Amino acid sequence: MRAPDDLRALAERYLGELALTPELGGLATSMRYALAGGKRIRAQLCLATGEAVGAEPETLLPAAAALELVQAFSLVHDDLPGLDDDAERRGRPSTWAAHGIGVAILAGDGLLAEAFRLALTYPNPGVARELATATLGMIGGQYRDIGGDETDRDALNRLKTGALFRASVCCALWAADVPEREHGAWRRFAEELGPLFQIVDDVLDGDGYVLTHGLHGARAKADEAASRARDRLAAIPADTSVLGAIVDGLATRTA
Amino acid sequence: MRAPDDLRALAERYLGELALTPELGGLATSMRYALAGGKRIRAQLCLATGEAVGAEPETLLPAAAALELVQAFSLVHDDLPGLDDDAERRGRPSTWAAHGIGVAILAGDGLLAEAFRLALTYPNPGVARELATATLGMIGGQYRDIGGDETDRDALNRLKTGALFRASVCCALWAADVPEREHGAWRRFAEELGPLFQIVDDVLDGDGYVLTHGLHGARAKADEAASRARDRLAAIPADTSVLGAIVDGLATRTA
Repeated sequence: MRAPDDLRALAERYLGELALTPELGGLATSMRYALAGGKRIRAQLCLATGEAVGAEPETLLPAAAALELVQAFSLVHDDLPGLDDDAERRGRPSTWAAHGIGVAILAGDGLLAEAFRLALTYPNPGVARELATATLGMIGGQYRDIGGDETDRDALNRLKTGALFRASVCCALWAADVPEREHGAWRRFAEELGPLFQIVDDVLDGDGYVLTHGLHGARAKADEAASRARDRLAAIPADTSVLGAIVDGLATRTA
Repeated sequence: MRAPDDLRALAERYLGELALTPELGGLATSMRYALAGGKRIRAQLCLATGEAVGAEPETLLPAAAALELVQAFSLVHDDLPGLDDDAERRGRPSTWAAHGIGVAILAGDGLLAEAFRLALTYPNPGVARELATATLGMIGGQYRDIGGDETDRDALNRLKTGALFRASVCCALWAADVPEREHGAWRRFAEELGPLFQIVDDVLDGDGYVLTHGLHGARAKADEAASRARDRLAAIPADTSVLGAIVDGLATRTA
């Protein structure tokens, strides 16, 4: 079993060497710009889940990359002036600020379409179906976030953050051809990852749950989410030690 | 065999009744707005191809709808101020002009993701793979069209228009489980549809090929494309009479 850092390095190398569809031409430059610098947590989760169910992590790399491409797609579009209007992302100009609005719209579209292309390299269409479900949830979440529909924070996070974390685990199950009857325990674990990630994010940024629950209240909620995630991992009949380490990392991260 | 108009009506009804993913919430309104008013040529081609290879057109409807959703996605995003900046589409305000830029970005994203969801309702992942290839080509074409890469008109049209026409025929082959060894003759036919459509479009709009070849020259090129499409249809061992009628319609359309 490879450690989380090794899995991250594996994903990073694969993404760095990923051949984009030639027809995209020069658009690839802005797509790679948008893809750079992520923490690769979703890829790690996918690879670690795959290894836990007995697959070689290398065989999970297209699915892991697809998840990171969907994440990058959502950030590129959400940052646009017509949406969140963020000129900065990960300490440098966001994609539209660096490459222009039109190119950023197309770069996001290209990342999403490439993600499906990668997910569709598997014979099992479950990988791409899982990705479509997650993407639709994220889009619905962003629509609520810009004020389109009234919603509460938990429901919003379930869509905006939770959907892709769920897919990070479940895409690996489909890619590794785990029978559907065995997915339940994994899905229950995957459900906890979005809340865990989001609450810690809010603690680090001092917003979201911190505004409604105070710093200590939010910290306590994060610990509860981590604890539930560990309990649910324990219910899975497999060696989930690396996933446990990823959960610990999510709970204690400082950036 | 159903006539082209019946196939269009079938597609129109299916699109009108299509249940969008509930998580999209109120975004569905702008997505339906973007989807309204198309000529449904791509859906017609898909349904007619399906019927020619012996499938019930009804079984092709999710694939036909997916093609129309991808087409609508590309129009919504291309019309945005950051790209072509068109405030009008099909004689009424374009989606961003009617619903705002942010909502239009998300509506396009939602249409694309729903298209993949629909394509993935088939057990055969070839439908969704074909759609991904076409979408990537269209995005690359639009990137060239806004000046991203130098290209000639034929290459541009092959990506911007041709890719989805090709997929309109080929998605039907995958959905109907036509063995891959029989796809060749169909693909050669499908290759002619993009040029045929685009040259007639330019004749009707007085731009593109009309500017380089003159009105009569462009008209002659359209007739040649229609003639090649009919020849290639004739090489397919199936009853392609409805597809022939669609080709005639594309060659003689006045809107």
